Amino acid sequence: MSQDRLIYLPLGGAGEIGMNAYVYGYGKPGEERLIVVDLGVAFPDMDTTPGVDLIFADVKWLEERRERIEGIIITHAHEDHIGAIGHLWPRLRAPIYARKFTGRIAESKLEESGAPIKSVLHIVEPWPAQTITMGPFSVGFLPISHSIPESAGLIIDTPKGRILHTGDFKIDRDPVVGEAFDDALWKRAAEGGVKALMCDSTNVFSPAPGRSESTLAPEVEKLIASADGMVVATTFASNVARLKTIANAATAAGRRICLLGRAMRRMVEAALETGLLTDFPAVISPEEAADMPRHKVLLLVTGSQGERRAASAQLANGSYLGLKLKEGDLFLFSSKVIPGNERGVIRIMNMLSEKGVDIVDDAGGRYHVSGHANRPDLQTMHRIVNPQLIVPMHGEHRHLREHVKLAEESNIPGFLAVNGMMLDLTDDRPKVAEYIDTGRTYLDGSVQIGAMDGVVRDRIRMALNGHVTVTLIIDEHDEPLGDPWCEAMGLPELGRGNAPLVEVLEAELTKYLRRADDKTLLNDDALEKELRKITRNTANSEVGHKPEVTVIISRLV
Amino acid sequence: MSQDRLIYLPLGGAGEIGMNAYVYGYGKPGEERLIVVDLGVAFPDMDTTPGVDLIFADVKWLEERRERIEGIIITHAHEDHIGAIGHLWPRLRAPIYARKFTGRIAESKLEESGAPIKSVLHIVEPWPAQTITMGPFSVGFLPISHSIPESAGLIIDTPKGRILHTGDFKIDRDPVVGEAFDDALWKRAAEGGVKALMCDSTNVFSPAPGRSESTLAPEVEKLIASADGMVVATTFASNVARLKTIANAATAAGRRICLLGRAMRRMVEAALETGLLTDFPAVISPEEAADMPRHKVLLLVTGSQGERRAASAQLANGSYLGLKLKEGDLFLFSSKVIPGNERGVIRIMNMLSEKGVDIVDDAGGRYHVSGHANRPDLQTMHRIVNPQLIVPMHGEHRHLREHVKLAEESNIPGFLAVNGMMLDLTDDRPKVAEYIDTGRTYLDGSVQIGAMDGVVRDRIRMALNGHVTVTLIIDEHDEPLGDPWCEAMGLPELGRGNAPLVEVLEAELTKYLRRADDKTLLNDDALEKELRKITRNTANSEVGHKPEVTVIISRLV
Repeated sequence: MSQDRLIYLPLGGAGEIGMNAYVYGYGKPGEERLIVVDLGVAFPDMDTTPGVDLIFADVKWLEERRERIEGIIITHAHEDHIGAIGHLWPRLRAPIYARKFTGRIAESKLEESGAPIKSVLHIVEPWPAQTITMGPFSVGFLPISHSIPESAGLIIDTPKGRILHTGDFKIDRDPVVGEAFDDALWKRAAEGGVKALMCDSTNVFSPAPGRSESTLAPEVEKLIASADGMVVATTFASNVARLKTIANAATAAGRRICLLGRAMRRMVEAALETGLLTDFPAVISPEEAADMPRHKVLLLVTGSQGERRAASAQLANGSYLGLKLKEGDLFLFSSKVIPGNERGVIRIMNMLSEKGVDIVDDAGGRYHVSGHANRPDLQTMHRIVNPQLIVPMHGEHRHLREHVKLAEESNIPGFLAVNGMMLDLTDDRPKVAEYIDTGRTYLDGSVQIGAMDGVVRDRIRMALNGHVTVTLIIDEHDEPLGDPWCEAMGLPELGRGNAPLVEVLEAELTKYLRRADDKTLLNDDALEKELRKITRNTANSEVGHKPEVTVIISRLV
Repeated sequence: MSQDRLIYLPLGGAGEIGMNAYVYGYGKPGEERLIVVDLGVAFPDMDTTPGVDLIFADVKWLEERRERIEGIIITHAHEDHIGAIGHLWPRLRAPIYARKFTGRIAESKLEESGAPIKSVLHIVEPWPAQTITMGPFSVGFLPISHSIPESAGLIIDTPKGRILHTGDFKIDRDPVVGEAFDDALWKRAAEGGVKALMCDSTNVFSPAPGRSESTLAPEVEKLIASADGMVVATTFASNVARLKTIANAATAAGRRICLLGRAMRRMVEAALETGLLTDFPAVISPEEAADMPRHKVLLLVTGSQGERRAASAQLANGSYLGLKLKEGDLFLFSSKVIPGNERGVIRIMNMLSEKGVDIVDDAGGRYHVSGHANRPDLQTMHRIVNPQLIVPMHGEHRHLREHVKLAEESNIPGFLAVNGMMLDLTDDRPKVAEYIDTGRTYLDGSVQIGAMDGVVRDRIRMALNGHVTVTLIIDEHDEPLGDPWCEAMGLPELGRGNAPLVEVLEAELTKYLRRADDKTLLNDDALEKELRKITRNTANSEVGHKPEVTVIISRLV
């Protein structure tokens, strides 16, 4: 009879920064009781996922084992940890555990899914005040500092020992809003020995010690005090501490605050409702802001990553809710650009520049600090917890690999586990139990599709090479009725020699049909294949693109 | 009678970093004799230009005035200055002037265009040895340090005074290969007064003084000496000085050099042929490299920007010309990532990480220096030249604007001229003479198309929302023959309620046709419009996408 085992299985987040989804299990192989930590999203891009709205980890493995899931834990309310909860809960239907602020954000996501929030969502007090029993696991939420309030690490007690799961964190002893990093608390959590530390890897390549959120206030104050016109500031809406720092600086400079963007208003509301923000200044409406002298207003806006529909982009484009920027205004990006978003951010900066708006960004590090532990801070965490094993998470492959090396520098074994690699942690040495088929699920418009379904591949091909429709009617005698008809989309109108492309295509197809034998004319598949090939090759020689081709053969009977 | 005037007209490069193309003119308004400085490319991206191969400035204005062009000057052999010469020369057909190394690179580009190179391409010796007369202009090529050999600034003498055009530059007094920045030469060029300085703006936001190419050698040597396995280094192939620094370090560490990638081999050849490189070590072939012990080899490879088909990407993917990377090898990115290329570079880094290859990049600045003048170096240039006017070029709007501010800090008037803005420089104060319609031309496969032709717009739309073909046959009595037929591409197969999307579309279209009046059925345009609308709306409600639709109505007569 097989023994109970303790397993760890990342489904997302161990191979990218995004779409976090980690599974722990305990029990007989194949019968483990499971807990899920985080259900986040990743964001699409034109290069690889055009037309996609959101990206989730593929949770098919979990869905098939739904009755074994004891619960879903959300460590904090960043989209890459909470963003998929509304979309995936209907497939998993397990209870959800989160701290108060995180739960408040989860609620609005679950509302859209139609989940019975009251019976599903459980609000947890931080350890040691509360531990929750989840089948064979006992779980405590350990407060930890990050760039959003009430971030939680997890103490996961299992029959085979204690696991600490850091969640996203930085070591910030003065975080402006929410709990400071509490060395004593984490030391206490590590007392008696930790079997494994699952640890954030995001900033493993940043060599300098991380800076506290509180170091920004003097710089932000100075900047805003020096401004003559309207000031606009953007950052992640969820960075409530930053919002407070900026709002305080604005107030000190005699400015009123106006919040622009749905996420900005929602986060401030959630923070006020949950008691995290107590002394945030009363805000004014866009209409009020538009009526005030420019030097009396600060707009706190969404869109720090250059998102096309966010408030930043709309202000850069022209106007937003009656507010317009002009020469002498100041725009502060209190944020860093997430790799891949550079083009969008630069586009906005240039549009602002065209209006004569002065732009201040994070170059120099005066107006932004990261929410993740830098290399020396990771080492501090390693030292505090002193686990038997470090399993890096929350990173691309290069981050995980570097974090394993860093662990080994501290003389702690590290193990590089990527998405789909099920680790057996039962014994002292981890071993790979199994490889699970993992992947990505796309929220595509209103439906979920698999990354490998071919839908997005076809879109990319059309984006690169255009599309041609070929229609052909075959009459009752199995002869072409008239000539084939072509329509092209996303292709140059004229080819070599300035002849219209579709005319050249039609001529080539007609030429082929004149000499096609009866056997081919009778066989739709063969005929379609031939017409497609001729279309692709002719287009390639005319305009240098091999388009996607839709052939429609209609037979009159 | 109108007076002769001196004009400056950027067609590209004053609004982006890329596709440089500047025009100077002198003569009666509308009859100016023209010189063109640089004909470069910009690079496409999936977000805005999917399927496009290269981007040029739109030279229609020049083409229409072809007989007035005295010549085309190429300042240096970077693609954003020389890349369009082969593609655009056939439309302009003017003589080309360049220094020897640049000319050597121009030749290979002109060969492809079928231009009569011998009669077209003129090699120019640097000022003061040679000045060339180009109509009313007298032009000298002023050596200046940059990240490619033989970069040239220009002295443009006009009847209204002297213009200095920096070209791309940095102030490097020890550039490893090629001419050091020569303060005395530039001072001498500025003697007697300079009417206007057209000046590189790329690094106007970089606050620290630029570092010399020569500062890298000790660091690169140390790194390569410390490596145990194979070493791969990538940088821009045109950075001949960097190639030499890396090759020297490899030689010092007892390694042989193997060049991978066409551009890499071509640049080294051109540098050897033109005498710029004299002591470059003899290289080995990929076959030889594969047979040698790993610690005896250094591969110098293309693809520092993550380009999908370059040697770096191929090595990361698996193997290239029989060479494979493995655990313990070292990969050096001796380059910075151009904004927008982050995703491609990171993709390669993660693939290398999966192979266990150690990656060293420019974080920390030890293995790369920029080729452009930083803020303090721009001020040095301003001071040396002390012009009456500074016109920033080679920058996005934000760079140009900042450079104007920087000029004014030095008490020199600056003027922000963007693409298409024709400046009249005749008098002491510049004024805008005219706005020229400018834009971008795409090399798209094998043909040139306009950016506003709608071709790329259609591709983007298909990438975001897919494509549906609707075919309908109308019989001799103007009645639908059977039901309409749909084919979808790039759309989820199943919609709401898991019904196949095309079946739902066909059902909706059929329903419409059953109730359509005779008038609509007789009118192809009206019918097509209606079928398209129904298809788009139905798809939107089924899968959340409004696809591009091709409707083909065939009438039997």
